[in-house]
Amino acid sequence: MADYYKVNYKDVPTEDVSGTEGGVSIRWLLHKDIGVPHFEMRLFEFPVGAKMFPHRHSWEHEIFTLEGEGRITVGDEPVDVKAGDAMFIEPQALHGYENTGSSVWKFICVIPKRD
Amino acid sequence: MADYYKVNYKDVPTEDVSGTEGGVSIRWLLHKDIGVPHFEMRLFEFPVGAKMFPHRHSWEHEIFTLEGEGRITVGDEPVDVKAGDAMFIEPQALHGYENTGSSVWKFICVIPKRD
Repeated sequence: MADYYKVNYKDVPTEDVSGTEGGVSIRWLLHKDIGVPHFEMRLFEFPVGAKMFPHRHSWEHEIFTLEGEGRITVGDEPVDVKAGDAMFIEPQALHGYENTGSSVWKFICVIPKRD
Repeated sequence: MADYYKVNYKDVPTEDVSGTEGGVSIRWLLHKDIGVPHFEMRLFEFPVGAKMFPHRHSWEHEIFTLEGEGRITVGDEPVDVKAGDAMFIEPQALHGYENTGSSVWKFICVIPKRD
């Protein structure tokens, strides 16, 4: 591959996300198939009221909210986030998401590269 | 540490960046000192006309432009980016940055965790 790869998020197809309701979508912006060595960057969009049910996994999240407002529940603690908030969620932490605002909630979420 | 860490970027102190001119700043949003296991998230701000001179290093970048416009030169190829663009820069690629727009250029840049 070249020394770089560039894409506008709007040019990346959306995919549905399991374990959600209300039309949550994901776009894989920078991912293993373009040759990233260590971590992958995705963009999530939650329409008003949409949610992702609590779940856990062995990898961490690093999240940055671009637009809108949401609630990320970690264990039994609700954490409200808005544009400009960065959040780290530990591996194995139980976590769920809900758009609690009045517009789309859009955030970047970085994870370790999948095997 | 807790199962999560949250911070608004505006609450993170800015630091100057070497190898730049025009008042470039960095904020370390999610970093090794809060216990991230694999990668660190920073936010850069380039005032109008500010630049970072070309350099290379052994780690990759994953960049997402939040606001404004800039030019990222990889090797001798200029790549223009704007809000919503994601970009991957390979390890060891020569790269430099310049705000080519008329407002602040603000972007997220994720790197592997420093030793």
